[in-house]
Amino acid sequence: MLSDEERLQSRAVKEGDYILLYIDNKRRRLVKIRKGAVVNSDKGVVKHDDIIRKNWGESVTLSTGAKAYILKPTFYDLLMNLPKRITQVIYPKDIALMIMLSGIGSGSKVLEGGVGTGFLTAALAYSVGPEGHVYCYEIRKEFVNVAKQNLRLLGLSDRVTIKIGDIRKDVTETELDAAFLDVPDPWNALGSLSKALKPSSPVLIFVPTVNQVIKVVKALEEHRISADVHIYESILREYQPKPEALRPYTLTIGHTGYIIFFRIIKA
Amino acid sequence: MLSDEERLQSRAVKEGDYILLYIDNKRRRLVKIRKGAVVNSDKGVVKHDDIIRKNWGESVTLSTGAKAYILKPTFYDLLMNLPKRITQVIYPKDIALMIMLSGIGSGSKVLEGGVGTGFLTAALAYSVGPEGHVYCYEIRKEFVNVAKQNLRLLGLSDRVTIKIGDIRKDVTETELDAAFLDVPDPWNALGSLSKALKPSSPVLIFVPTVNQVIKVVKALEEHRISADVHIYESILREYQPKPEALRPYTLTIGHTGYIIFFRIIKA
Amino acid sequence: MLSDEERLQSRAVKEGDYILLYIDNKRRRLVKIRKGAVVNSDKGVVKHDDIIRKNWGESVTLSTGAKAYILKPTFYDLLMNLPKRITQVIYPKDIALMIMLSGIGSGSKVLEGGVGTGFLTAALAYSVGPEGHVYCYEIRKEFVNVAKQNLRLLGLSDRVTIKIGDIRKDVTETELDAAFLDVPDPWNALGSLSKALKPSSPVLIFVPTVNQVIKVVKALEEHRISADVHIYESILREYQPKPEALRPYTLTIGHTGYIIFFRIIKA
Amino acid sequence: MLSDEERLQSRAVKEGDYILLYIDNKRRRLVKIRKGAVVNSDKGVVKHDDIIRKNWGESVTLSTGAKAYILKPTFYDLLMNLPKRITQVIYPKDIALMIMLSGIGSGSKVLEGGVGTGFLTAALAYSVGPEGHVYCYEIRKEFVNVAKQNLRLLGLSDRVTIKIGDIRKDVTETELDAAFLDVPDPWNALGSLSKALKPSSPVLIFVPTVNQVIKVVKALEEHRISADVHIYESILREYQPKPEALRPYTLTIGHTGYIIFFRIIKA
Repeated sequence: MLSDEERLQSRAVKEGDYILLYIDNKRRRLVKIRKGAVVNSDKGVVKHDDIIRKNWGESVTLSTGAKAYILKPTFYDLLMNLPKRITQVIYPKDIALMIMLSGIGSGSKVLEGGVGTGFLTAALAYSVGPEGHVYCYEIRKEFVNVAKQNLRLLGLSDRVTIKIGDIRKDVTETELDAAFLDVPDPWNALGSLSKALKPSSPVLIFVPTVNQVIKVVKALEEHRISADVHIYESILREYQPKPEALRPYTLTIGHTGYIIFFRIIKA
Repeated sequence: MLSDEERLQSRAVKEGDYILLYIDNKRRRLVKIRKGAVVNSDKGVVKHDDIIRKNWGESVTLSTGAKAYILKPTFYDLLMNLPKRITQVIYPKDIALMIMLSGIGSGSKVLEGGVGTGFLTAALAYSVGPEGHVYCYEIRKEFVNVAKQNLRLLGLSDRVTIKIGDIRKDVTETELDAAFLDVPDPWNALGSLSKALKPSSPVLIFVPTVNQVIKVVKALEEHRISADVHIYESILREYQPKPEALRPYTLTIGHTGYIIFFRIIKA
Repeated sequence: MLSDEERLQSRAVKEGDYILLYIDNKRRRLVKIRKGAVVNSDKGVVKHDDIIRKNWGESVTLSTGAKAYILKPTFYDLLMNLPKRITQVIYPKDIALMIMLSGIGSGSKVLEGGVGTGFLTAALAYSVGPEGHVYCYEIRKEFVNVAKQNLRLLGLSDRVTIKIGDIRKDVTETELDAAFLDVPDPWNALGSLSKALKPSSPVLIFVPTVNQVIKVVKALEEHRISADVHIYESILREYQPKPEALRPYTLTIGHTGYIIFFRIIKA
Repeated sequence: MLSDEERLQSRAVKEGDYILLYIDNKRRRLVKIRKGAVVNSDKGVVKHDDIIRKNWGESVTLSTGAKAYILKPTFYDLLMNLPKRITQVIYPKDIALMIMLSGIGSGSKVLEGGVGTGFLTAALAYSVGPEGHVYCYEIRKEFVNVAKQNLRLLGLSDRVTIKIGDIRKDVTETELDAAFLDVPDPWNALGSLSKALKPSSPVLIFVPTVNQVIKVVKALEEHRISADVHIYESILREYQPKPEALRPYTLTIGHTGYIIFFRIIKA
């Protein structure tokens, strides 16, 4: 329990904090607070010093008179604003569904193939909690350091082991609870999964094209190591939040990829 | 670490275990194993005794010759097969997205309004891990016992406090990390949220109709206690897993509801 | 110009007329009026004699007190209620888009491959007007008579020539304005199209699976006889018409098929 | 029937013809051929003189070596490339569905409210053929001339009467077969429809927001002049035509508007 004073203090923004500075739905920015620094935007500027000692959820006024809110970033905000994030193909809507379908949670041990900049990795690590662990394989060395930096920033390094290696042949773990693949040729990694996962554990694969879906499902039929195969596509529509003119936005992300779910079974 | 013998034993199905008996995508059933019992299906019957001592992921043969797989149920399987689940309006695809957007995870303290049979409650409790907690308000007494039973079955009772009370006026908690509402009139519960949540914390509301979306967003504008308002609709398409004839299923769930996200801020 | 008396008469329902008897959105039925006959429904019965001499747009009261409207069927109503219609894979939403994309209209000469029961045929014949014509090829003799009956009922026989023959090799027409294919292997009919169509004319193909889309587009690339290739999928959502609870219907047709558009060009 | 020579001539592009110059799916341009003129594009230039005497469907080579096809524009191509078209809210996919649902065709007499630049007007005029007619009301004078120019260009002027007037009160026609409304407040035009349409005729309304849908359906319930009310939303996905990497385009038009269908009945 916090004392009243501690609570009040914990409500104040401090040097070194990350804030989500929110002007409007198109102007939301993660900012690390540093004395003397300034935030620039096309809606005006504001000094970090004016933000410090404000409480979370309060607003500051930009030089143009526009209002900006000081929001405490959630894990989701941090994830979406990773400094080293390259264009990711896999979106939060897809990751959320994959995690739900996998059934993983606090304490789960998870395999991941294809780390990239660590976006999915971070979401998995967050889901398995401090008792769980994520074992990752990435063959492209240049990504590994970026991913590690991102995980450090999110405070998730302890839950993740990243190995420079090939998910198709280098996996050494066994008895894992689920596997997640975001690689171009997941059909070549099926053998690894049989060895690494507990029997009947779920596998989640993300691929952008229907050709890849076809190849994966064909490989599953040939290898006879799967049951309970499902293919999903999640389409997210966002509506403009105007109560007098409610409608989806005109332009939208119409496609990200397909999610394949199955379970590893005895051949 | 398990010894080899323990590992082998842990792989075998035992009396009292829940299994997911998988015949095909339309015939997937959660079964509690009891000596002497029998599973009936339109694809044939199988004795529980024939399932016991099989290993997870192995198959049994039904009386008709059809094959059934013995899958170890994940949390997701258990959730989807809760014995006392009534028709829920809120689907896993929506829950997954709401949890992702909320940023909650291991250790989060969460408010829930509208427990029903505990479907969303269970998913939230699973997400916050053993260190987190879910505080729930439900005015319909008849649901509370059902929800408690479901949570017990899922081993999540310790993480949840269910109160028979009105989310619109009875909330006593403070300093919570996020709120989830699945009630018919969420616009009447906004006052409660301001008091219960830490400043700038996210709120997730699920409603089935556009009229409710309009009312919520209108109320948010009037009360001036929100920022960062977003409205989403998640559409899930499932494809038939036939590599020679890949296509979405003809008949599908075309609508479940709308998800409203916002953050509580200082008026 | 009609005299007032003629106009009044034309408004009255007569023996032999088709009416659309509308009780509610789930109870809409095309009925041919015959003296002495009776309409049965789970909402009650009504005598044809009570309908005769009513005017279009007026209502009758069923035996249970429920109200039914006497609607003059449009072409669309007739099309959707063809007596010999078998389950069609191609839906009005798809046909409408195909016709729009093809640019056909009054006076167009059109090729059709795969007549079935004449559903698409009828829509095409309606679009090209009395000056246009539709040339159809169907190898399954059993369908041809059904299609012809349907076209007669819709008064469209004069605009259509149906040949029992193979769209892949039997086409004799030339200088046509557009082609529509609803056959399982459209990639085998591409040669016919080159000969039958005016250069640069549009082709519209409907197929239910992504595998067929892939095969068609691959064949187009190999044969080098196409330009301006586009692939569409049209998803139709219907909302329940309740102004206090507006939302899409829960259960819906989630998939019908894919539409491929291209133009025939010189190799 | 054309003689062989006439046919060959009709195949050649001539001064004054409109062509659709197709380089790729992002570079498709309607061009009016004029001796001495030049087409510029970021893929190179080509002289109109090099296009003249080419046949429809043949290709020309741009200055960069890129290939461009000379396609004979269909009505759809002309419509989509109207020189005076302003950003239209109503898309071909919606117009196609509205026309299909209305059942109009060759010979239909149609009412239109809200002409704009004549995009929907032109599509309606094309559908009703030379025997049909479209009666239009538009209160914004500045649009009327633009619309008339567009209709002239498409050769449809004879089928359309545009009146500067208010669809809500100035309609003088009677006995029409269907009505199409693309105005901001269609609920105010319902009285006009009752007078102008034959009893039980279909009305099609296009509106961009759910609030407008709610208002229309509420008005229909209050006025008691409708039956057979349906609300649709058509979502169009376009796939990239790559047979080795088939997938919908990432960015897409996610929303245009809602289509309301109903029939005018006796109060």
